[in-house]
Amino acid sequence: MLPVYRGVRRSLNVVYLSQVVKRSASGLCSSLTYDEYGDPEKVIKLKEEVIPKPEGKQVLVRMLAATVNPADINTIQGVYAIKPPLPSIPGNEGVGEVIEVGSDVEGDIKPGCRVIPRLNAWGTWRTHALADYGDLIKIPSDIDLAMAATIAVNPGTAYRMLKDFVPLSTGDVVIQNGANSAVGQAVIQIASALGLRTVNVVRDRPGIDELKQKLKDIGATVVVTEGQLRKSEEVNSLPKPSLALNCVSGRSGTEVLRQLSSNGVMVTYGGMSRQPVTVPVGSLIFTNVSLKGFWMTRWNKEHYDHPKRQQMLNDLFELVSHNKLKPPEYSYVPLENYLEAIRNAMPKDGMLSKKQILVFGNGK
Amino acid sequence: MLPVYRGVRRSLNVVYLSQVVKRSASGLCSSLTYDEYGDPEKVIKLKEEVIPKPEGKQVLVRMLAATVNPADINTIQGVYAIKPPLPSIPGNEGVGEVIEVGSDVEGDIKPGCRVIPRLNAWGTWRTHALADYGDLIKIPSDIDLAMAATIAVNPGTAYRMLKDFVPLSTGDVVIQNGANSAVGQAVIQIASALGLRTVNVVRDRPGIDELKQKLKDIGATVVVTEGQLRKSEEVNSLPKPSLALNCVSGRSGTEVLRQLSSNGVMVTYGGMSRQPVTVPVGSLIFTNVSLKGFWMTRWNKEHYDHPKRQQMLNDLFELVSHNKLKPPEYSYVPLENYLEAIRNAMPKDGMLSKKQILVFGNGK
Repeated sequence: MLPVYRGVRRSLNVVYLSQVVKRSASGLCSSLTYDEYGDPEKVIKLKEEVIPKPEGKQVLVRMLAATVNPADINTIQGVYAIKPPLPSIPGNEGVGEVIEVGSDVEGDIKPGCRVIPRLNAWGTWRTHALADYGDLIKIPSDIDLAMAATIAVNPGTAYRMLKDFVPLSTGDVVIQNGANSAVGQAVIQIASALGLRTVNVVRDRPGIDELKQKLKDIGATVVVTEGQLRKSEEVNSLPKPSLALNCVSGRSGTEVLRQLSSNGVMVTYGGMSRQPVTVPVGSLIFTNVSLKGFWMTRWNKEHYDHPKRQQMLNDLFELVSHNKLKPPEYSYVPLENYLEAIRNAMPKDGMLSKKQILVFGNGK
Repeated sequence: MLPVYRGVRRSLNVVYLSQVVKRSASGLCSSLTYDEYGDPEKVIKLKEEVIPKPEGKQVLVRMLAATVNPADINTIQGVYAIKPPLPSIPGNEGVGEVIEVGSDVEGDIKPGCRVIPRLNAWGTWRTHALADYGDLIKIPSDIDLAMAATIAVNPGTAYRMLKDFVPLSTGDVVIQNGANSAVGQAVIQIASALGLRTVNVVRDRPGIDELKQKLKDIGATVVVTEGQLRKSEEVNSLPKPSLALNCVSGRSGTEVLRQLSSNGVMVTYGGMSRQPVTVPVGSLIFTNVSLKGFWMTRWNKEHYDHPKRQQMLNDLFELVSHNKLKPPEYSYVPLENYLEAIRNAMPKDGMLSKKQILVFGNGK
């Protein structure tokens, strides 16, 4: 009888054995799967299938933790820029442990080591996966599991936006909105470690003082609400920023754009307000600001096995090991309770709750 | 008695002799001057003053033709990015003839040669000027006067936008709105000479078919109205443009932005709609378009005597000499009729009439 991994009950309503495998099987894999785009609470099903033993260059990975990001939700809804072929297993991000490797697997991927996927849309919402070893990146095994599961997308985005658009030196100022987002918190911490100062714009909300203190505690130089930005003496006493990071767009995007110095760059990586970015013509012509976009998925695709990618991960893990980069607040959610994770991963009134991280049995 | 240049009547209401010169005088100079910002028809006065003989590195230039550009109007109104110290003589652009040079003038600036100013806000709306020879650029004497008077700002803007933002090869497509503007017509001609194809967007108007033909006659590949752009088979059959040039902004800017290929760049150099540029978030993140601005004044300042500047002028005059670059439709207006030129240089319903070129006596 095939072993059942990670305590997923075999009495689930939906059990598929879609792959009739002739070679020897490793066991059963449970995965969240959808075969039509739509409301994630309706189209996502928990399925079970036999997973074969790894052969050749294949690696059998058991997932330990996988993030439920807003982009995953939008992908399932069919409203994201990427529409994977169906049926599809969601999940761009997560950390797993190598269980078994095929005979042709080379390099440092060995049983017991921890790995993250090199590919976007790899499908991390499952207990197990077979992958070519080249599509996995080995990471340190002593990293906190939640940090390892969430390091690729959000801290990666923060790191690249701070590195790739404007040359920055110690003491330079970066402004961002949505500063309490997962990327925003990573920006604060990485910028602080790089000796940069940050102006952090957040939406006014109940408990704003505690939020400001929380962001200052992780390294924010100044935290202001959108309404305070223009008149803030703290902001006005700093040099003008040459880099603005925008995940809100709409009016908030325009406001941070207006703070930029001559020749400054605003990088847009989100549109939480569901509004476009509105740019005063004079900012472009006379202040010579530029607007660019950033999308981690594209960057990873273009730097699939580029040394810059490994360098980025090394730098990020270095920060983690020195306690300079921590994950945002999160909740571990057992795979079976995936509906709870999906519900909590959708923004309410433009606000996100804690990062939802799926865990698989005793993985954490 | 001092000679009176260029037929400007000495019976003008406003005659100033603001400079009591001790050195020998060249004669009387008439200039348009303003000493407060406001409605150009009210604040601009025609003044007359004694102009001294050139000494040292100075050159006495008699102006032959000077353009009245919308930016000049905005500067006088006090609503432009540059506010020159008052009193000020308007005019960024024009061509003059060297009359006399000081004893220390070196190089190729000699009596009889034609020159354009190297500096912005040099003040071309006057019959004569004394200038340091380093602030003048010698140009060929056989160039049509209207072309020489209008080559610096608009063809310069077109040239730089085609050269400096996106690498373009033969057959590549550039899209622009405001295609009938002075810059737009220069873009069409320079792009055509470079072997590029252009998609030209114009506002619908009476006589649209004649306008389309006119732009095709100077080298436009496709001309469409704003309403036709999205559905035009002619446009859709071309490769997507990697460069968009935007002088309208508002909805028109968004529409040309949407036509861009992945990694495309939209350069904004005007806001004729008086609306900001609205950018869909997905264009930035997923299509990876960038938005930049261009301002000839800044470029000239940053490339005051840079070899690129002379190269640009050489290239433009080369096009002119091969009949590949012509001035836009223009009217010569005698200095005394400056009110007519100012009135006609202001957009009506977002449309500009013929380029207004001030001429001075028998200069043309």
